[in-house]
Amino acid sequence: MANSSFLSDLMARVAQAGWRRHARGDASDTFDLFQRLLGDEGEASGLVTAMQALDQFETHSPSEKAQLFHKIAGECSVDDAALADAIAAYRPGDAEAARRIHYTAEPQSLELIRRLNRVPGATARLVNMRADLLGALRDAPSLKGLDADFEHLFASWFNRGFLEIRRIDWHTPADILEKIITYEAVHEINGWDDLRQRVADPDRRLFAFFHPAMPSDPLIFVEVALTRVIPAAIDAIIRSDRDRIDPTDATTAVFYSISNCQKGLRGISFGNFLIKQVVAELQSELPNLKTFVTLSPVPGLRKWAEARPDLLTPGDLAAIDAADGPSFDDARRIAARYLLHARRPQGTAMDPVAHFHLGNGAALHRIHAAADLSANGRAGSWGVMVNYLYDGPSIEANHQAYATAHKITASAEVRKLAD
Amino acid sequence: MANSSFLSDLMARVAQAGWRRHARGDASDTFDLFQRLLGDEGEASGLVTAMQALDQFETHSPSEKAQLFHKIAGECSVDDAALADAIAAYRPGDAEAARRIHYTAEPQSLELIRRLNRVPGATARLVNMRADLLGALRDAPSLKGLDADFEHLFASWFNRGFLEIRRIDWHTPADILEKIITYEAVHEINGWDDLRQRVADPDRRLFAFFHPAMPSDPLIFVEVALTRVIPAAIDAIIRSDRDRIDPTDATTAVFYSISNCQKGLRGISFGNFLIKQVVAELQSELPNLKTFVTLSPVPGLRKWAEARPDLLTPGDLAAIDAADGPSFDDARRIAARYLLHARRPQGTAMDPVAHFHLGNGAALHRIHAAADLSANGRAGSWGVMVNYLYDGPSIEANHQAYATAHKITASAEVRKLAD
Amino acid sequence: MANSSFLSDLMARVAQAGWRRHARGDASDTFDLFQRLLGDEGEASGLVTAMQALDQFETHSPSEKAQLFHKIAGECSVDDAALADAIAAYRPGDAEAARRIHYTAEPQSLELIRRLNRVPGATARLVNMRADLLGALRDAPSLKGLDADFEHLFASWFNRGFLEIRRIDWHTPADILEKIITYEAVHEINGWDDLRQRVADPDRRLFAFFHPAMPSDPLIFVEVALTRVIPAAIDAIIRSDRDRIDPTDATTAVFYSISNCQKGLRGISFGNFLIKQVVAELQSELPNLKTFVTLSPVPGLRKWAEARPDLLTPGDLAAIDAADGPSFDDARRIAARYLLHARRPQGTAMDPVAHFHLGNGAALHRIHAAADLSANGRAGSWGVMVNYLYDGPSIEANHQAYATAHKITASAEVRKLAD
Amino acid sequence: MANSSFLSDLMARVAQAGWRRHARGDASDTFDLFQRLLGDEGEASGLVTAMQALDQFETHSPSEKAQLFHKIAGECSVDDAALADAIAAYRPGDAEAARRIHYTAEPQSLELIRRLNRVPGATARLVNMRADLLGALRDAPSLKGLDADFEHLFASWFNRGFLEIRRIDWHTPADILEKIITYEAVHEINGWDDLRQRVADPDRRLFAFFHPAMPSDPLIFVEVALTRVIPAAIDAIIRSDRDRIDPTDATTAVFYSISNCQKGLRGISFGNFLIKQVVAELQSELPNLKTFVTLSPVPGLRKWAEARPDLLTPGDLAAIDAADGPSFDDARRIAARYLLHARRPQGTAMDPVAHFHLGNGAALHRIHAAADLSANGRAGSWGVMVNYLYDGPSIEANHQAYATAHKITASAEVRKLAD
Repeated sequence: MANSSFLSDLMARVAQAGWRRHARGDASDTFDLFQRLLGDEGEASGLVTAMQALDQFETHSPSEKAQLFHKIAGECSVDDAALADAIAAYRPGDAEAARRIHYTAEPQSLELIRRLNRVPGATARLVNMRADLLGALRDAPSLKGLDADFEHLFASWFNRGFLEIRRIDWHTPADILEKIITYEAVHEINGWDDLRQRVADPDRRLFAFFHPAMPSDPLIFVEVALTRVIPAAIDAIIRSDRDRIDPTDATTAVFYSISNCQKGLRGISFGNFLIKQVVAELQSELPNLKTFVTLSPVPGLRKWAEARPDLLTPGDLAAIDAADGPSFDDARRIAARYLLHARRPQGTAMDPVAHFHLGNGAALHRIHAAADLSANGRAGSWGVMVNYLYDGPSIEANHQAYATAHKITASAEVRKLAD
Repeated sequence: MANSSFLSDLMARVAQAGWRRHARGDASDTFDLFQRLLGDEGEASGLVTAMQALDQFETHSPSEKAQLFHKIAGECSVDDAALADAIAAYRPGDAEAARRIHYTAEPQSLELIRRLNRVPGATARLVNMRADLLGALRDAPSLKGLDADFEHLFASWFNRGFLEIRRIDWHTPADILEKIITYEAVHEINGWDDLRQRVADPDRRLFAFFHPAMPSDPLIFVEVALTRVIPAAIDAIIRSDRDRIDPTDATTAVFYSISNCQKGLRGISFGNFLIKQVVAELQSELPNLKTFVTLSPVPGLRKWAEARPDLLTPGDLAAIDAADGPSFDDARRIAARYLLHARRPQGTAMDPVAHFHLGNGAALHRIHAAADLSANGRAGSWGVMVNYLYDGPSIEANHQAYATAHKITASAEVRKLAD
Repeated sequence: MANSSFLSDLMARVAQAGWRRHARGDASDTFDLFQRLLGDEGEASGLVTAMQALDQFETHSPSEKAQLFHKIAGECSVDDAALADAIAAYRPGDAEAARRIHYTAEPQSLELIRRLNRVPGATARLVNMRADLLGALRDAPSLKGLDADFEHLFASWFNRGFLEIRRIDWHTPADILEKIITYEAVHEINGWDDLRQRVADPDRRLFAFFHPAMPSDPLIFVEVALTRVIPAAIDAIIRSDRDRIDPTDATTAVFYSISNCQKGLRGISFGNFLIKQVVAELQSELPNLKTFVTLSPVPGLRKWAEARPDLLTPGDLAAIDAADGPSFDDARRIAARYLLHARRPQGTAMDPVAHFHLGNGAALHRIHAAADLSANGRAGSWGVMVNYLYDGPSIEANHQAYATAHKITASAEVRKLAD
Repeated sequence: MANSSFLSDLMARVAQAGWRRHARGDASDTFDLFQRLLGDEGEASGLVTAMQALDQFETHSPSEKAQLFHKIAGECSVDDAALADAIAAYRPGDAEAARRIHYTAEPQSLELIRRLNRVPGATARLVNMRADLLGALRDAPSLKGLDADFEHLFASWFNRGFLEIRRIDWHTPADILEKIITYEAVHEINGWDDLRQRVADPDRRLFAFFHPAMPSDPLIFVEVALTRVIPAAIDAIIRSDRDRIDPTDATTAVFYSISNCQKGLRGISFGNFLIKQVVAELQSELPNLKTFVTLSPVPGLRKWAEARPDLLTPGDLAAIDAADGPSFDDARRIAARYLLHARRPQGTAMDPVAHFHLGNGAALHRIHAAADLSANGRAGSWGVMVNYLYDGPSIEANHQAYATAHKITASAEVRKLAD
């Protein structure tokens, strides 16, 4: 049974670390494999073709990969004659004819990605393929269409209903924990002892979303500190000699770090669901928790301010120019102006972190100076950090106000600061 | 935190059997929920809307559901103005403009289904929703477009790479085993004792595909008998007083029943992958197995023959008209003619089971009379059954010959029978 | 590596159903294996000897097994000379010398059982071996000592701390559910549909204790009905057309059946721990539950009464002699006298079910006539059943009163009945 | 239901890290709890007593614990009158009377340990209690009897048949991996990166035994290197910049480190079973492996040699006295003499590692100088290490020869060295 033993050989080889060394060929060979995959092959041999294509792709250099992406974008397109027919048959209001256009106009690249995904374990590899594509995209905007195909499929495959939330703790397998260390993007984890505190201390929690096709790869995770007060600085949370508290004594859950793990999933939004589900989990575990709040960076503050925008007063500008940077009070005032008033052309908050939490329905609650004294923190925002408050009864209204009218909900304290 | 406690309430209520009794409203209320879901809501409240919509949908009568499907098909369509613009910008050969048409022409029904799927456990419910749609479709061909949307999304979500194969045996949870009893479509399972034989006897195997979002719902399963000869009748396989053999003594694996479990997944093909993966699993477990063969029904034989098609000789027709039906020899000869020569307009085999196995690369190996003496077997094919042979070295060539030229590979014995 | 490949062969063979057919030899060959096992062998070959010994034992007839038990009891004894020395060195009050006697006097049979247990999966087989021994014991009281050895070891191995409680429901593997059907000793389970009600109806629970070395073999299980009243008859609980209630509406948990599963664990008590742990589980899941009560048979009532004991009045005796048996009132009164006053020589309750629950601290709460109209129920107790009440605040005092003074706690109603 | 809610409270409190702070009392209070536990309590309240006793014990200082052990040893003894009666009834050859002596002479300390073990999670705590006892024992030989009780029970509870083998790799939970780092007793693991090599490199394996009542606590583990040659030095195995090989290319499995993890299990032997089971696992995974060998330290060599025993020649003694220690050749020769000829009074090998492997049936295969240049290695054996060979066909004979006649099987090379 050559064919089926081929399949079982295949499985065996996949299991072995070494087998990919057999993959070879240049970008144009790989493109041939892609085209064969789109042709009319038997499913078993199609599976083998897909596996070879993935293996070979992964041996390519960035420039070979870019070359390949261009070939896909250019050649895996539509049947123009069929599309012309479908267009000709369409009249506005004819839903069925419009649907026919939709399916006729589907670029072959979508089917290519779906067929590659048939290989066991392919999903994670396709996510990496898109990360490569995003790299190539920086120099070649013409790849945007192909990237949209990846994003569209991933949005469907990584649908909220397919994800599972898991608590990460000291019983979690080491390979997953190692990825947490690697992916932490906000407040670096300095090795296993630091990690142990963040996942295993009684007053710490870490939750992540996973997709069943990538069971060892977290998609996004959030780190939570359980406290008795709303914190004003990150050091109090992450330093190793802090006092631990009994989690049943905590009144406040602080989301102090949210990290997306997969570059290749850019544009697929998980954070909003994650925060809300973690709130629900924590409320169920610890009914004493009353306040849900972030301790967040303000990554765009300093860059914005140093461009001397019109929103700043002469006093603000003088503060910025001071030898040691702005004083604590100055920094907080400038931050308040930035967060409340600096906007993108479409009217949303300029700061990406602010945009994320405000869009989720949080309110801008407090602004702290000297809150993040790391090199990063000073460079981004003179050390300023912010609490966004997730206040149940008003989340929906906050979200609506921001989504429809770009209205930012902020505490009186912050509003006063900005004046 | 009203909103997040709402979420946790929600989870709690979902866990409880009873909560759906609160769902109420008629089809037009449900459609309002669908439209709210497509609008610009916060994600948490969108989740609640989706859950209410699903709950309410499930309380409707078939005619209410049909009414609702018509509303979706008619009103969840495209933005005609935007589509006109995209069409205007398109010239043949412009892949990007074609892609823009594709995304602009996407019917809103696709996004509706994706948003409904965000609810935990929704995937199985959407599969059932499509089963309802298929029911409504019989009387209303205009729903075909909406059905194509479901089929398109399901083909993407139930991609081979997302499925897992599991062996079903006597350690399998009872709720899954109960579904096997229910879904067996070919040779009825008469209760738990009969099931026990089919999954727990040493010379029997049952494998199924599952999707991680539906962990207790098999999608398709195949039943295998391990034997020392190619069987000529089904009774030898399923009767309870047969001799069991030591599986390491078996040389032949017989696929004697393949059942699709989910009506709502019609058109999504799993069987080809399942058979090939089961061959690989069995080869790895039992290296003595040399022959992989089916024992399959011929469901269309009698209906076809009784329509007196031109392919039949006067002798065949006389045999059909005989008081007791055709003799064994006559039945086998007529079956051979049917399987080799009766074709659909597009040239493929008329018999659906033949079409499935030939399309997978199997060969038509043997034809047996008096092989299925059940009422079903007599009514469908005068008791005739067939062995299709999955012969490794020739599978790919068989598949290609059938896929491209509708050429049916058959043993000399069968070809001689048909002459 | 003959030896270690021997080990791996061994494992392989164990995995195969068929391999035990190789075991052969009569009881005296098996005894030779037992003696080799007690000798000074290498551990790997000792493991093989143990495996052969178990395999061979299981091929023996009951009379061969009995013969073997006698040989063990007679010949696997102590070193009399060493014991004499240890005794000679002992003076009352010398704890160390007493300990030396203890270890010197240990019968070799204990070590034999421990060595047999080294074989993977042996624990369940040793439990069955003791069941065989209990059978042989009926005709041969001289085996009591050997049985005490088994009981002593099992009490240590099946220590409460090693057991795990599991809820049995419709997600439980079929092989375990099948054992529940088999082992139910009180109210027969009529097949899988009946079982499904008892484990999967929303107002039913079934909990069992397991030992990690016997993961598919329940040791004991209890069936619970969640109700709104204390039930007066078993039929209302087990009949298939009863009304189901929402478990959150239940106020009362009824333990209506407790079954020990392993004959070979006779004398090892699990029921007391199980009931109390199930109460704790149910309280945690369903805080509305306020009353924990049994619905129990009175197996010894009729046999006792028909022996015309002095405790019965002439009226009682006349009632017993009535053509249709005693009236409802008569039966309840006689049952009350039996349960409150009939005692074993050592002063404990004569009825074994009463003794079990009273010893656990329950109170005798209510007595119902016409409560179990099955053949068993009529034959044992004219259909009488009893509620024992597990009332938290008084459990400890009830237990102490019964344990130290054989005082039976009963409700005023029952006490009045008995007068 | 005060009592059962007490039980559930208890469970809840156990789950919480903090609850043990409530334990208090001095050693004599704890002894009172022990005595209450041995008295006639209800089982539920007995469970509470046991839990309090364990909690309180763990708050004690070493000297309080020692005091408590003395009280147990002295006061939890036997019923002298009953023992005298049992002795009086005994005549040599009366197996039943001897058995009665055995059970009558059982020290109460055994029952105390069994009752403490009823508490969920108690087994690990009792193992730690014995570790404390072993500490106290160093200064108080009179505790030996009590220690024998622990050892006796643990030998029964940690019976081979109850253990499970697990491969430890990079998917293993971090809390278990952390224990591997802590417990490695032979070649220190320098943090997580070093650990990662030892468990996750393709040519490395680590296997451990676990007991189901201590699922996160390894009992013993062995580290294996897969190589193409028998190694002559430890550095080639543990250094981080070594070449990794494909495991299917390996011919040799090297057991380079075996560590017992639980001080409290001293005297309970697991290593022999573990090595043999790991050989079986490896043979099944990698059929190319032909040679199973250790790379072992010689911990007693230098201490023995520096005591100038008669077995050494004047040349040996001169070599020992050399300024830089013995030359490579001298060290190997002296080691050969030590390993082959240095014996304990009872005739067994003086070196504990040699005794372990020879007792398991291994042969003394090769002796390497400059094989362990760590401080430990130089201090113990001038850097000498040894290969013991597990050669299948001769294991059983080797074991017998050593067990019965203290005969050490060695290669011709080693024997020649020693002459």
